[in-house]
Amino acid sequence: MAIIGVLGAGMMGSAICVPLADRGHDVRLVGTHLEGEIVGRLRSRGPHPGLHVTLPESVKVFPVHEIHAALANNDMFILGVSSAGVDWACERLRHYVEADRPLLMITKGLLWEGGRLQAIPDVVHARLGADAPPPAAIAGPCIAGELARRVASCVVLAGRDRALCDRLADMLRTDYYQVWTTDDVIGACACAALKNGYAMAYGFAGGLHERAGGEPGTVAMHNLESALFTQSVLEMQRIAVALGGRAETVVGLAGIGDLDVTNNGNRTGRFGYLLGLGLSVDEAVARMQGATLECIEIVRVMREAGLNVEMPLMDHMAEVVLDGAPVKPPIARFFG
Amino acid sequence: MAIIGVLGAGMMGSAICVPLADRGHDVRLVGTHLEGEIVGRLRSRGPHPGLHVTLPESVKVFPVHEIHAALANNDMFILGVSSAGVDWACERLRHYVEADRPLLMITKGLLWEGGRLQAIPDVVHARLGADAPPPAAIAGPCIAGELARRVASCVVLAGRDRALCDRLADMLRTDYYQVWTTDDVIGACACAALKNGYAMAYGFAGGLHERAGGEPGTVAMHNLESALFTQSVLEMQRIAVALGGRAETVVGLAGIGDLDVTNNGNRTGRFGYLLGLGLSVDEAVARMQGATLECIEIVRVMREAGLNVEMPLMDHMAEVVLDGAPVKPPIARFFG
Repeated sequence: MAIIGVLGAGMMGSAICVPLADRGHDVRLVGTHLEGEIVGRLRSRGPHPGLHVTLPESVKVFPVHEIHAALANNDMFILGVSSAGVDWACERLRHYVEADRPLLMITKGLLWEGGRLQAIPDVVHARLGADAPPPAAIAGPCIAGELARRVASCVVLAGRDRALCDRLADMLRTDYYQVWTTDDVIGACACAALKNGYAMAYGFAGGLHERAGGEPGTVAMHNLESALFTQSVLEMQRIAVALGGRAETVVGLAGIGDLDVTNNGNRTGRFGYLLGLGLSVDEAVARMQGATLECIEIVRVMREAGLNVEMPLMDHMAEVVLDGAPVKPPIARFFG
Repeated sequence: MAIIGVLGAGMMGSAICVPLADRGHDVRLVGTHLEGEIVGRLRSRGPHPGLHVTLPESVKVFPVHEIHAALANNDMFILGVSSAGVDWACERLRHYVEADRPLLMITKGLLWEGGRLQAIPDVVHARLGADAPPPAAIAGPCIAGELARRVASCVVLAGRDRALCDRLADMLRTDYYQVWTTDDVIGACACAALKNGYAMAYGFAGGLHERAGGEPGTVAMHNLESALFTQSVLEMQRIAVALGGRAETVVGLAGIGDLDVTNNGNRTGRFGYLLGLGLSVDEAVARMQGATLECIEIVRVMREAGLNVEMPLMDHMAEVVLDGAPVKPPIARFFG
């Protein structure tokens, strides 16, 4: 069994401690400077305030000022902060990550850096220095609240060192947490970022249906939803390939799996639903009451990147959230 | 504009009359001998009893004994009976379908015939005779009740004569009914048949969740659902290829599009949900109150076909519905 340090006590950072503890690892969970309250609740053995689940007793919880005591002798690290906290986290972790003490990332997706879209694990690798092993990232359909409740979940580790990924997967796997591996870091990270945008598009259909006077039910705008889903997958394949990833990764857990689970969630889809209803972007954002809307950011970044890719749905999303255009999916231009 | 005869006044046969009439075609809808009541309702300009929608006034409706008056001078035919009625329909249509009077099929999927799985349009072609043009079939995510209400819908015509498909697509297309074409008849028909089975598997997750004491909500067994969805797509690709179709067809409207819309429907998924809850097959069938359960048939046929394909989820479904095994998706054997 290994000593594993998890930096970031948010939903997924905390949830992954459950299978790690179940596997018998010595797990040290470190909250960031923004997570003092979570750390306090967990140290008093209360439920996690976001997950509403009590972590296994064996998980040791540390505030950020005890980070050295928590991480000094670890065999492996997991980065669980938001993408906005990646720089901060790299500064902390660079003292610990080494060739035989690898980093696994919950944080994944794309960053616009140096005038191009880069996979977050590659950006982190550059920050940590060439001596550090290439970080792996966890992708696939995994709602944190479900993993924390030991719901059967299937994920994929994406990393440039396939043998390292296989070793990490073996350390993580439990009967309810099944882990596969891939070396397509760019494809997996493109999926992780893009699914947030396309889940908004899936939500458009429900809003358009109600705007047209329809009631929720099995006869609604599901035909349109499923056409949007299909077009999303095709555009994700084209974008992944344009960035240097593989189309087949999209037809897997990181792509259609994560897109499907995100479509079943309520945050991004609800934002799309509100736009479909006819609310302005500002009105819809206000209704979301401060919820993180990664969908706006990925749409903005995709426009900035200016890839030479046929993606009429992504272009339409950009017109809606950046230019204030009404929601009207250009279905005649799909499936080109 | 063309004279188009539609044989079968069920949900989809009737629904497709809406875009046809909107395109200005002269539409003749013929009910089968089992659809006398529907014909009566439609002729008195009442709503269709299944769709709860009144068809456009220009649609002419005929009882089966007036079939010759309805079809004698048509430019094109649409077959909209259930797959059980295909032989009956072929007997009727063989007098009318000719080289320049083609057949388009709503009925599609696979038939177990002559010791092998065949695409229904190919079986129909053999019945009609070599002089008839190869029938095309409509695939993709299209709930009849939504099409009849002019919800934006995207479908694909699959036929062995691509030029004929393109011509038929041009005749069907409206602003809300968008039509693409493919020559992968086997791939499209495999998807149409298999999605009924795999939608049952998707439903397993909700039943397992409630059986474990969970409430419906955003934290449920969505991780498992989306893993089942992903595995379904991968198995559908393998099966399509084993039958002579193309994997790319599965990553399109006929495959993931139709699977997604079927997962959103309530019939097959509800049956899977009941099995996931722990009901026996007989109990679950009884609860479905006579609803058609194509999922049982496709699972039976797939076992009988004995394809040399890695499909642990299909095998598990067969154990559940044919052997009475409890629902427990073998996730460790997925994504092999």
